[in-house]
Amino acid sequence: MNKGVKILLTSALGIGLLTGCNQQAADSKNDKDMEQKVLAAEKGEVEVIKPHQGLNQKPIPLKMERVGPNEVNVEMTSQITDIEIDKGKIYKAWTFNGEAPGPVVVVNEGDTINFTLKNMDPAIPHSMDFHAVHASPSKDFTNVEPDETGTFSYPANKPGVFMYHCGTSPVLSHIANGMHGTIIVKPKAGYPTDKDIDREFVIVQNEWYKYNDLEDFTNGVPSHVVMSTKALKEGDQNTNGDTFSLKDKPLLAKVGDKVRIYVNNVGPNEVSSFHVVGTVFDDVYVDGNPFNHMKGLQTVMLPASGGAVVEFTVTREGSYSILTHQFNHAQKGAVAILKVTETGEDDGTATMGH
Amino acid sequence: MNKGVKILLTSALGIGLLTGCNQQAADSKNDKDMEQKVLAAEKGEVEVIKPHQGLNQKPIPLKMERVGPNEVNVEMTSQITDIEIDKGKIYKAWTFNGEAPGPVVVVNEGDTINFTLKNMDPAIPHSMDFHAVHASPSKDFTNVEPDETGTFSYPANKPGVFMYHCGTSPVLSHIANGMHGTIIVKPKAGYPTDKDIDREFVIVQNEWYKYNDLEDFTNGVPSHVVMSTKALKEGDQNTNGDTFSLKDKPLLAKVGDKVRIYVNNVGPNEVSSFHVVGTVFDDVYVDGNPFNHMKGLQTVMLPASGGAVVEFTVTREGSYSILTHQFNHAQKGAVAILKVTETGEDDGTATMGH
Amino acid sequence: MNKGVKILLTSALGIGLLTGCNQQAADSKNDKDMEQKVLAAEKGEVEVIKPHQGLNQKPIPLKMERVGPNEVNVEMTSQITDIEIDKGKIYKAWTFNGEAPGPVVVVNEGDTINFTLKNMDPAIPHSMDFHAVHASPSKDFTNVEPDETGTFSYPANKPGVFMYHCGTSPVLSHIANGMHGTIIVKPKAGYPTDKDIDREFVIVQNEWYKYNDLEDFTNGVPSHVVMSTKALKEGDQNTNGDTFSLKDKPLLAKVGDKVRIYVNNVGPNEVSSFHVVGTVFDDVYVDGNPFNHMKGLQTVMLPASGGAVVEFTVTREGSYSILTHQFNHAQKGAVAILKVTETGEDDGTATMGH
Repeated sequence: MNKGVKILLTSALGIGLLTGCNQQAADSKNDKDMEQKVLAAEKGEVEVIKPHQGLNQKPIPLKMERVGPNEVNVEMTSQITDIEIDKGKIYKAWTFNGEAPGPVVVVNEGDTINFTLKNMDPAIPHSMDFHAVHASPSKDFTNVEPDETGTFSYPANKPGVFMYHCGTSPVLSHIANGMHGTIIVKPKAGYPTDKDIDREFVIVQNEWYKYNDLEDFTNGVPSHVVMSTKALKEGDQNTNGDTFSLKDKPLLAKVGDKVRIYVNNVGPNEVSSFHVVGTVFDDVYVDGNPFNHMKGLQTVMLPASGGAVVEFTVTREGSYSILTHQFNHAQKGAVAILKVTETGEDDGTATMGH
Repeated sequence: MNKGVKILLTSALGIGLLTGCNQQAADSKNDKDMEQKVLAAEKGEVEVIKPHQGLNQKPIPLKMERVGPNEVNVEMTSQITDIEIDKGKIYKAWTFNGEAPGPVVVVNEGDTINFTLKNMDPAIPHSMDFHAVHASPSKDFTNVEPDETGTFSYPANKPGVFMYHCGTSPVLSHIANGMHGTIIVKPKAGYPTDKDIDREFVIVQNEWYKYNDLEDFTNGVPSHVVMSTKALKEGDQNTNGDTFSLKDKPLLAKVGDKVRIYVNNVGPNEVSSFHVVGTVFDDVYVDGNPFNHMKGLQTVMLPASGGAVVEFTVTREGSYSILTHQFNHAQKGAVAILKVTETGEDDGTATMGH
Repeated sequence: MNKGVKILLTSALGIGLLTGCNQQAADSKNDKDMEQKVLAAEKGEVEVIKPHQGLNQKPIPLKMERVGPNEVNVEMTSQITDIEIDKGKIYKAWTFNGEAPGPVVVVNEGDTINFTLKNMDPAIPHSMDFHAVHASPSKDFTNVEPDETGTFSYPANKPGVFMYHCGTSPVLSHIANGMHGTIIVKPKAGYPTDKDIDREFVIVQNEWYKYNDLEDFTNGVPSHVVMSTKALKEGDQNTNGDTFSLKDKPLLAKVGDKVRIYVNNVGPNEVSSFHVVGTVFDDVYVDGNPFNHMKGLQTVMLPASGGAVVEFTVTREGSYSILTHQFNHAQKGAVAILKVTETGEDDGTATMGH
């Protein structure tokens, strides 16, 4: 029996030992501690690196300031913050601004972004790769060391729904540990369907794997695939970094509304088959560019990092599931609910999801 | 030795024990039975649930009746029926109308569908989620209990090639066990290429996993990926629910024909890279909507649940493989053959597939 | 201990035993040999088939000759050649012309291709399936036996970026062992953006698995995913079959250049999310057909076998990573570097990749 445990420990040690995602038990006895490590090793889990142990940095809000008709200052913070990725399941995430996915950044086509990254991570350098901009990756997306601040400037000349993520090596670890989000560049000329839209939401899909386990990130299957909603502008409802709880806390719309979703699949590894139950998309703009107009889609194919603007009409009261139709991923959590009522307010009825 | 088997049983029991897909040996001795269970458990197979054991319900045909210029009655039956998914490999499928994929439903853009679901499954509720309609998922796609009948009404306002599936929780189990199919909504104004089409076929791609094993559905790889052809209208050739045998029973066309395929990838999990060997698609309509027109594609990317109308010309006699170019899936069965002859009739020559 | 090794051998023998990819140790003692076999079997590796052992055929160049305004002769050779797929990692590939991916074939829309395949493989028949042509798969893509030559003729009537591959059964083994490449059919009327293009490159993505292991090809995950660049015309820089080393040997461009990449994902199994860090695609032609025009994409979804023409502008000096944003695949090697300097020449600075 003892031998069996030793074998498990040995194979797991190739990856590392874990002390647990929740650090509350840090004062536990050594025996108890060792027992937990054995259990964790059997589960193939990887330990939180030393400088992150016990760390749970309070989210610093995104700062944005328009400083000219075509110029905007954006300040973001890389930090280590506990994220609840499933009921009671905490992930000590590497984040932008204490959220994973990070806050949505909204700018206008043609804006120059003056971007500042403050790195509160005590141990690891981080960086920012905005898919929306023209920049020199080796100069403008470079590392900001622990406790340092970096500033970069670049134009956002193309409209759309773009991914952003930490670009520090190994990039896969930085994205999979939570450093991803969405930047929306509003088209100068708008979308041809702008005038019809009653409600707008942002939905971001991402996967979670074993804790900070590059081997699992590279060769495993995700333990969780989730959808998050984000505030599109200040004062929006649904502004918190809700993920799995989107199955319980529905988005809201009114019967007859034309709803627009800015959707972004930030991966890190999987593609997404984005679908809303009970409707057909009236209009879709691939990657959010008005030129890439499609109609009548049931499902939008999103590559890893891909985005879209999707628009649809809800004609009857009820609960509409928003999901990826790759149903193994929906089964792992990638479902949100849109509740449609006569008034557009929550009528208190229970929702029914998949 | 005995200990080894016990360990296997223990780990397998987390999922469940199997008695075998074919129930013919139900009168076998207990010893033999236990031996089979052990073998099944070692293979990680899950047993057929009690009320389905020995059940093989004769397929009830789809009923369709046009009751007005823009109104059609559709009646389908959820039932438990053995499906041969590979030579000699029987899967006790959860089905619509005893087929998996289920029968193709064809309506016109603008039709209201009055839909009735008769549930012959003695144990499990089922439901219907048509991707083609505007409906309230929580009211119009609701469960029909065993031995009961439900009726729902909704409009099909968008043309295209849409998936339908059971929407009862866990949806992944209902789809993966066989409750999927295709509904085609014919566009009012037709396709710009309608006049050029000589032959039309329907092809549906789906995956099979370990029997009714939600763990394998969620985290496994498919054991089989298959293509099925379905009748587009009454009297069509190739009307049966053939799947794996499509490699042996070719579709037929004539040299010079322009062939149209309504293709639908019903998953439940995988995307598809739909390709026909020996030709290039002249025209493709993504999700079957005439607005989403592409030309000259070698391969069409289908998300999970995605559809397309693809059209191509066959210029020479011979056997053309129709497959997903994700070749691990083609290797698992996702290949059909189109045989092209001078007359369009089968000339009896052998086909050559991949 | 001994027993443990025996168990490993037994399970591995279901697939086969290996003697090692590098055959230099062929004169080693039997004991040493057996030891290596045991190690290989433990790693689940499959042995090189007997007639390929020790074989490393010198690459025979592609032969192309224009014999008429709309007619071109193409001669290719199937041969067994060692390919370095990672630093020091040799794969005894089944190849076209000693490269994997094989050499790029460039023809004009409307050309008839008179194609000759010389099969230098001493053991296995091979064939050629060009996605670019209209042909009879069962007559024009047929097997050429070892040491024989076959000639076939077919038109390339559709412009685009197409995959070619060996079509001999099991096709998955022939593709996964290296028999794939790209054929570009230049559009008669050109691309609307032709006049803006400063640089053109070809990039091909493919996966590698365990050596010649159909079980791993079918159910495994790739050990390597790589990007290769190929010469577009004679005299091009970057002409060799470089794969993994693309991270070290950058492609080159000048600040302000509009760069075009002909990209092709030859699989065999995976889709690709093609992305260039630090820019947004100005123009994309799906599968390389000018009709399928998209703008402002951050990432292009490529099905297995799918291609595209992607065009983008590099505005600042630096190193731009070219990759699939399915980051588990980038982590396994699918990254190339485009180095942008003031002059367009390599300035000797180090590159920084992901």
